[in-house]
Amino acid sequence: MYRPEIKVIDCSIRDGGLMNNSRFSMDMVKKIVSAVNDSGVDIIELGYRNSKNFFSPSDYGPWRFCDEDVLREAVSDIDLKMEIAVMMDSHKATADDILPREQSVVDIFRIATYVKDVDKAIHLANTASEMGYKSAINIMAMSHCVERELDEALQQINEETDVFACYIVDSFGSLYSEDIDYYVDKYKKYITGKEIGIHCHNNMQLAFANTIEGIIKGVNYLDGTLYGIGRAAGNCPLELLVAFLKNPKYSIRPLIEVIGTDILPLTKEIEWGYRIPYMLTGMLNQHPQAALALMELEDENIEKYDFAKFFTAITQEDIEI
Amino acid sequence: MYRPEIKVIDCSIRDGGLMNNSRFSMDMVKKIVSAVNDSGVDIIELGYRNSKNFFSPSDYGPWRFCDEDVLREAVSDIDLKMEIAVMMDSHKATADDILPREQSVVDIFRIATYVKDVDKAIHLANTASEMGYKSAINIMAMSHCVERELDEALQQINEETDVFACYIVDSFGSLYSEDIDYYVDKYKKYITGKEIGIHCHNNMQLAFANTIEGIIKGVNYLDGTLYGIGRAAGNCPLELLVAFLKNPKYSIRPLIEVIGTDILPLTKEIEWGYRIPYMLTGMLNQHPQAALALMELEDENIEKYDFAKFFTAITQEDIEI
Repeated sequence: MYRPEIKVIDCSIRDGGLMNNSRFSMDMVKKIVSAVNDSGVDIIELGYRNSKNFFSPSDYGPWRFCDEDVLREAVSDIDLKMEIAVMMDSHKATADDILPREQSVVDIFRIATYVKDVDKAIHLANTASEMGYKSAINIMAMSHCVERELDEALQQINEETDVFACYIVDSFGSLYSEDIDYYVDKYKKYITGKEIGIHCHNNMQLAFANTIEGIIKGVNYLDGTLYGIGRAAGNCPLELLVAFLKNPKYSIRPLIEVIGTDILPLTKEIEWGYRIPYMLTGMLNQHPQAALALMELEDENIEKYDFAKFFTAITQEDIEI
Repeated sequence: MYRPEIKVIDCSIRDGGLMNNSRFSMDMVKKIVSAVNDSGVDIIELGYRNSKNFFSPSDYGPWRFCDEDVLREAVSDIDLKMEIAVMMDSHKATADDILPREQSVVDIFRIATYVKDVDKAIHLANTASEMGYKSAINIMAMSHCVERELDEALQQINEETDVFACYIVDSFGSLYSEDIDYYVDKYKKYITGKEIGIHCHNNMQLAFANTIEGIIKGVNYLDGTLYGIGRAAGNCPLELLVAFLKNPKYSIRPLIEVIGTDILPLTKEIEWGYRIPYMLTGMLNQHPQAALALMELEDENIEKYDFAKFFTAITQEDIEI
């Protein structure tokens, strides 16, 4: 039995790009696009459409900007069944980078925002909507929000936009299933006539379980990434999500195939997934920054594996990692 | 808020031993024993007390037999706060290997059994009980049980033994939280006046989430292993479990420390954790045998990463892996 309203979004390139400054080869992205398209997944998010005023093109790869010619090339070889999304950070993007609809292969702009920047997010989402795109808003770092401000932001999004969905984002991988229940109930209270989405991180090996919890509670827009690729501990593995959903339009075969050919080789260059430093920042509801810095130490450096010392450092202020 | 009835069992050496024929060095086991003892975890399971008629001591390390002198040496350096358990497989162990209580450092015999062997398990559990030990029964491969036979086995265990707990074992890592709910309800129906335990595998990254689901439903005996070490995809990570439980008697510090010093180096010799072949056997509710065979291929062998071919093989009979 499946719920036809459910839409799955692959954000492998977008979230994975946080681990390599969005430097994926066009060849690899094409293979991922083809596999995700073949799997029946509904939407693929190919990267950020962030501003070159905030990110230098010499420091970042093409998937941080998602210029139209790059996107067009990425989808050129296939019979596109899915929709194309790009993400904008509300505080690192400008409405000028949203091109007229007829010049674009983009279908969906997802605006990621901290609560404090919600007015910027609403402006970007509304600009995209007015230009004929679909738009959504992802509220990041939910677990750090002041409750009253989050409520107000949700109310604003509901009243001032026509986004198709507003997302719960567990940026720090710190939420348990009971927290998902709590946030879904809150969203349902404020977000009416729009869908709720969920984007989980895997610091405590709960990204998939929390996504299922969201489904049980009525969330219909679900984020996943191939083999969980994403920042730090990564995301809900797309192959697990697709296997769980019983909708016959989905197939895991193209996903596991491309994981074998293109994602596993990547693990030699960039490292994501469950690791003790990420588990500790998740458990403590902290940004993974300190853990990412620890993970960047050379393998030969014993500091890298002194998790008790790291734990002391991140639980005491004024101590340098 | 914590539930004082909850008891956590570390089975790192026991379940991890399925990946290296129980060949851990005494030095490493001593460090694990010390760390687990310091963490406040209630019970440590040091291996199998299986019969030398079934396993040759030349092929298996000491933790497959857990001779008393070996156990005594393993716990010799510490002020023991936790209880010592060993596991017996009902079809690979004999009651003769249960020594008189006063000659033993063992506190608990856990009997692992398939439903078909439940009478053997009851005999072993009762022998241990009569000799003054505590005993428990773990029903393996629950997801393959014929329902009526499982019900009958549970009824027998309830009526014919005085085990302190009967365990739900998700041997193939194929259960979702709704399945855990179902089995806990079933156990509650048949097992009265004894505790329920849970032992999960991580094929679908649900071992920790399913253990939490068990806790929510009233399960009080919880299995975990350091960094999830265990057969194939491994188990519920002990450090996550201890972090989740709010009982102040537990501390994760000794656990993360020994993971850094002794468990991470092991990952170079033996490989466990979430991998696509294990995910596929879990999803299909199959024994991980075929996946383990695939994982043993040389890294240079491209067959090892042809997951689509493997998927075809394990979903079609008469095709050799």
